[in-house]
Amino acid sequence: MADKPKKPQKLKARLPRGLEDRDPMAIRATRQMVEKIRVVYELYGFEPVETPAMEYTDALGKFLPDQDRPNEGVFSFQDDDEQWISLRYDLTAPLARYVAENFDTLPKPYRSYRAGYVFRNEKPGPGRFRQFMQFDADTVGSATPAADAEICMMAADTMEALGIARGQYVVKVNNRKVLDGVRDAVGIADDGQWLTIMRAIDKLDRLGLGGVRQLLGEGRKDESGDFTKGAGLKEDDIALVLSTIEQSAPIDPRLSASAIGQQGRDELDQISKLVTAAGYGEDRIKIDPSVVRGLEYYTGPVYEVELLLDTKDEKGRPVRFGSVGGGGRYDGLVSRFRGEPVPATGFSIGVSRLQAALTLLGKLDTRPEFGPVVVTVFDRDRVADYQKMVATLRASGIRAELYLGNPKNMGNQLKYADRRNAPCVIIQGSDEKARGEVQIKDLIEGAKAAAAIASNQEWRETRPAQFSCSEADLVAKVREVLARHDVGWG
Amino acid sequence: MADKPKKPQKLKARLPRGLEDRDPMAIRATRQMVEKIRVVYELYGFEPVETPAMEYTDALGKFLPDQDRPNEGVFSFQDDDEQWISLRYDLTAPLARYVAENFDTLPKPYRSYRAGYVFRNEKPGPGRFRQFMQFDADTVGSATPAADAEICMMAADTMEALGIARGQYVVKVNNRKVLDGVRDAVGIADDGQWLTIMRAIDKLDRLGLGGVRQLLGEGRKDESGDFTKGAGLKEDDIALVLSTIEQSAPIDPRLSASAIGQQGRDELDQISKLVTAAGYGEDRIKIDPSVVRGLEYYTGPVYEVELLLDTKDEKGRPVRFGSVGGGGRYDGLVSRFRGEPVPATGFSIGVSRLQAALTLLGKLDTRPEFGPVVVTVFDRDRVADYQKMVATLRASGIRAELYLGNPKNMGNQLKYADRRNAPCVIIQGSDEKARGEVQIKDLIEGAKAAAAIASNQEWRETRPAQFSCSEADLVAKVREVLARHDVGWG
Repeated sequence: MADKPKKPQKLKARLPRGLEDRDPMAIRATRQMVEKIRVVYELYGFEPVETPAMEYTDALGKFLPDQDRPNEGVFSFQDDDEQWISLRYDLTAPLARYVAENFDTLPKPYRSYRAGYVFRNEKPGPGRFRQFMQFDADTVGSATPAADAEICMMAADTMEALGIARGQYVVKVNNRKVLDGVRDAVGIADDGQWLTIMRAIDKLDRLGLGGVRQLLGEGRKDESGDFTKGAGLKEDDIALVLSTIEQSAPIDPRLSASAIGQQGRDELDQISKLVTAAGYGEDRIKIDPSVVRGLEYYTGPVYEVELLLDTKDEKGRPVRFGSVGGGGRYDGLVSRFRGEPVPATGFSIGVSRLQAALTLLGKLDTRPEFGPVVVTVFDRDRVADYQKMVATLRASGIRAELYLGNPKNMGNQLKYADRRNAPCVIIQGSDEKARGEVQIKDLIEGAKAAAAIASNQEWRETRPAQFSCSEADLVAKVREVLARHDVGWG
Repeated sequence: MADKPKKPQKLKARLPRGLEDRDPMAIRATRQMVEKIRVVYELYGFEPVETPAMEYTDALGKFLPDQDRPNEGVFSFQDDDEQWISLRYDLTAPLARYVAENFDTLPKPYRSYRAGYVFRNEKPGPGRFRQFMQFDADTVGSATPAADAEICMMAADTMEALGIARGQYVVKVNNRKVLDGVRDAVGIADDGQWLTIMRAIDKLDRLGLGGVRQLLGEGRKDESGDFTKGAGLKEDDIALVLSTIEQSAPIDPRLSASAIGQQGRDELDQISKLVTAAGYGEDRIKIDPSVVRGLEYYTGPVYEVELLLDTKDEKGRPVRFGSVGGGGRYDGLVSRFRGEPVPATGFSIGVSRLQAALTLLGKLDTRPEFGPVVVTVFDRDRVADYQKMVATLRASGIRAELYLGNPKNMGNQLKYADRRNAPCVIIQGSDEKARGEVQIKDLIEGAKAAAAIASNQEWRETRPAQFSCSEADLVAKVREVLARHDVGWG
């Protein structure tokens, strides 16, 4: 029996989850943010470099993806020659590869910056996307804490350049070596137990000292009743850990015995002195022993930029932004390729995340931009004439377009112009043509007048904000309308 | 027997083939190009929209990748739910998905633009990359040739905005319907044969009428002796095809009989009239019946921007740039999702390709930018003082940095400053410090002087272009040096 001919199935227009399209306002905001960050980074002497969106998987520092689940955390595929390639999941790993590959020709120390999309093959959630933008700056080839101090100052300057006032953000600095000293002093051999301790410290902001204390000991039951198993430390070890993350507590003598811990504290002192000398007080850059940072590759100072502003979301629920950027020293990442020590420190701003925060805080310009002047088509035989008007406006630097839809209905043309947020439309019927004139309809003035006038009929009769001018005056008169409404372009 | 412990293998730092890193000059050039194109597109009333780098494979219009070779032409991977996702290979297919998904909320006609990287899983070659940038503009929802005419004018304006003078480029326009008319007239039923004919026409530029004639007939042997089989047309059919691609030839009566062919010619006439009325002569936009364009989805007018400039590559071999952009009407692409006709026309600039051409033509600013002012570390105990000088310079808007390498050797610091193309360096030893002074060394003046002075010793004695000033005058004096050399920032 022959198959019935199938009707071609209509494709569904949709994006994979965790991905988003971006509208003119979001695009403009990103462009402005990136430009402001760029100016600060260049002021600090950093130069741009860009790497492609994909790299060999091994160069990114992930191991060969598992055959059963090849996309754990990253998006990966095999090249023709069977080698695995992954989309970058951050901008640091590709930079390490770039510096290693071009080591002999780069100036050292090498300061560079780059903005770009990164990709995470993770479960998306609210505000959690699988493609988002980061803006990174790194100094490779300098082991001095002055390099870390510089990046912290640059992070602070960047926040202010983005319109976040002093006091509304803070750059918090810690040192992995200080944490390593704690591990020495407590004598933790088990990596898993140490990870539990780090995770507990990382939660100080949210749970307070009491919550951290529980997580360092037996464990903690949250409001919903869920129990999180603790690290199982003894009382005096818990006290030791808590003393290191309490800013005011004196240094425990057991900590002083750890050489690596002492080195970490000395480096923090140096950073503190350098930023203070350059005029950056604790309102901008602050040593905070509770900062952990998640990434495994950090080896020394780590820093985190936190927004101190609270706000409410659309539903009135309180929103804490927390970290919008961070980084640290990763002395081992370039060395993977070089087989020699290459110190490096870097900082990453989550542009997409920060943009979401700035949008909620009302710190981004979210007024819709004015659309172009729309030249309507009154008489479809005279499209060439209207096209010429458009060309004249454009030649004078005025954004303009010809109405390209079905010109049958002038009402639809005006509706379209409204949708485009056009400041004015141009109309020329045969009467005007005969007189060598055009009609200019000021849509913004018109909308105001329409709102003020009660009677629909009166509005139609007075035809507010619509006037005639000679064809020769078109550009000048349109300019007057644009200036009247401070259109911003033209 | 126990395995010998393996030494960890040193990773190789390299990129997959067909991908490239981008240096400051290339990045700056792209930024400038994108900005210039953007200004023109906005002048034409187009608004930005951006889609992510990946889409469902079926939405891009490729079929489910073959299991044996899942990456034919595109980079693809399976999502957690087994659905195939691909990196976009152009910006048109994602736009069609976007418009279909947001059809009811978008103004129509919908004019939009976007720049972004696209990815091709193809064999890379010289100047052929697997990641490159395109800049597209599209008008969706307008069937009138006025929309195509507008895009051709915009393409011409864009070339001039990018510094390509009138006469150095041309926008060539044809219509797929005219070619369909030829197919009707010759009576070609076989798609393969028709493709061979289209390919032959596409080679007019390179092979001339004689070469095309051979490819339409039995076939053609090239200089290397390789034989390309022809389309096997009879003499009168060959003459018919050739008459359509010869601009001056009269319309063959067999062609006039094809309704679709006549419609195509009428549309070209309309485009021609509209662009002429707007002042765009044949030196900018030209009907050219030999333009084919490769992509299968075109349904009406097609256009191609060609650079008319020749140049030589680094090895002195002649380089013809050919097409740096193109596009056409694709009335079927949005309809795939909508199940109703949605006319659309669009244009794509190959930014990476055009940038390579402009670089070879010397039309891009390829002078290296000046690096930051470098504050050297004379006395390592006084890093905080030097850091403060850097902060002072930066606070005045002067790009500046502290030398962050090993400060042992002042010679290395000066070499570093040279590598960074720093306009000047700041030096403060203990003598200067005692006098409240700093030394400013003008590296540009110094290099000139060094070139002029024969004797090394004399140079050392005169120490050209180095002077002292009081600490308070640091900013003012550095500004003088920057102004002297027209540094462009600061």
